[in-house]
Amino acid sequence: MIICKVKGHVWATKKEDTLVGLKLMVVQELKDGRAVGGDFVAADVVSAGVGDRVLVVNGSTARRALGRDEIAIDSTIVGVIDSLEVDREKSQNK
Amino acid sequence: MIICKVKGHVWATKKEDTLVGLKLMVVQELKDGRAVGGDFVAADVVSAGVGDRVLVVNGSTARRALGRDEIAIDSTIVGVIDSLEVDREKSQNK
Amino acid sequence: MIICKVKGHVWATKKEDTLVGLKLMVVQELKDGRAVGGDFVAADVVSAGVGDRVLVVNGSTARRALGRDEIAIDSTIVGVIDSLEVDREKSQNK
Amino acid sequence: MIICKVKGHVWATKKEDTLVGLKLMVVQELKDGRAVGGDFVAADVVSAGVGDRVLVVNGSTARRALGRDEIAIDSTIVGVIDSLEVDREKSQNK
Amino acid sequence: MIICKVKGHVWATKKEDTLVGLKLMVVQELKDGRAVGGDFVAADVVSAGVGDRVLVVNGSTARRALGRDEIAIDSTIVGVIDSLEVDREKSQNK
Repeated sequence: MIICKVKGHVWATKKEDTLVGLKLMVVQELKDGRAVGGDFVAADVVSAGVGDRVLVVNGSTARRALGRDEIAIDSTIVGVIDSLEVDREKSQNK
Repeated sequence: MIICKVKGHVWATKKEDTLVGLKLMVVQELKDGRAVGGDFVAADVVSAGVGDRVLVVNGSTARRALGRDEIAIDSTIVGVIDSLEVDREKSQNK
Repeated sequence: MIICKVKGHVWATKKEDTLVGLKLMVVQELKDGRAVGGDFVAADVVSAGVGDRVLVVNGSTARRALGRDEIAIDSTIVGVIDSLEVDREKSQNK
Repeated sequence: MIICKVKGHVWATKKEDTLVGLKLMVVQELKDGRAVGGDFVAADVVSAGVGDRVLVVNGSTARRALGRDEIAIDSTIVGVIDSLEVDREKSQNK
Repeated sequence: MIICKVKGHVWATKKEDTLVGLKLMVVQELKDGRAVGGDFVAADVVSAGVGDRVLVVNGSTARRALGRDEIAIDSTIVGVIDSLEVDREKSQNK
């Protein structure tokens, strides 16, 4: 799962049938707390809001998260992050 | 789903049998509105046109979007974007 | 599907059983017509030749293209490109 | 499998149902012993601790490692590394 | 399939059950003959040795190569390369 920030919404009138009714959100990956890379689009199953830090799954797992294997989705928001606890000391030691 | 721009068409006479009759389009990923990376090729199920901003799924999901799991496709255009609404303020705060 | 150039062949005497009899070719991705990244190896089902521009699928789709889901292949050449038509004007407008 | 360092934990109250009860850890890939790229989140099935070097599988294999194909996980920690033995001499020769 | 060099071995006492008894090797991708990127870990089904140039499959194909779909492996060595023949002239022409 990658850590992303929710940035907004996307609308598409012409779309594949299985996408009708899905909430599609614009997200961007966070690395060390900073947004990196480009925006991409994920389905949302946890009522995430704009500005939330979220967990996003990709690939075939994104379909599992929606409980519908025939769906045309390859990224899904599966959690809203309450807190990230990173132990800088232990994780530096090698 | 990644956000891409449709750039053109590709023709291939010699091709795998399951590709016959599919509309194959040249697309390029957009990051923050600018085309980045190289061109790649996606099947189209939403009658996208050259110049459209579209949603593209990759991997096994691309086959699901075509409703045929045996098909030799790993990228499919599944939506034409009407609008992207990004809340810069909320998505910057954190 | 990514756009690649066929560069040569690879031989391996010691190999997984499902690979016996497959034609394995060395390919390299093209971005804007120039070869980029490193060489990789793909199975060929369309009798591609060295120097051809080809369409390559990756992941589970590469097995579908061979019609054998148990096969140890994750990249397959599925088409020989006749022509690529990119509309630079329309695809620049946004 | 990629080689990662375990850096911490992540908590999410709002999450997809299949994630309830899973231990989710923050990990970062190691290249030549140094942490590179951003943090991501993996489920843990081997009781890894913060600071451990671990083996992480991604994609559909992450679900197999949990023995539940319907689960919304695409990265799983599947081993705690005791030692890595790299033969620099042989692996340089070509 | 990507072209890799075998660099060594990895040991993990604490590991997911399906990994018990597998030979896990440290490999690194080769691009134009030079090792690039970081080390990663692949299962071996062709008795590869340290220093060998090998073919590695990733993702769900890595499980197929082991003939066990439930296994927690996403990279497998499926061939030892005898020779790579690249036609530099033809593959430069476009």
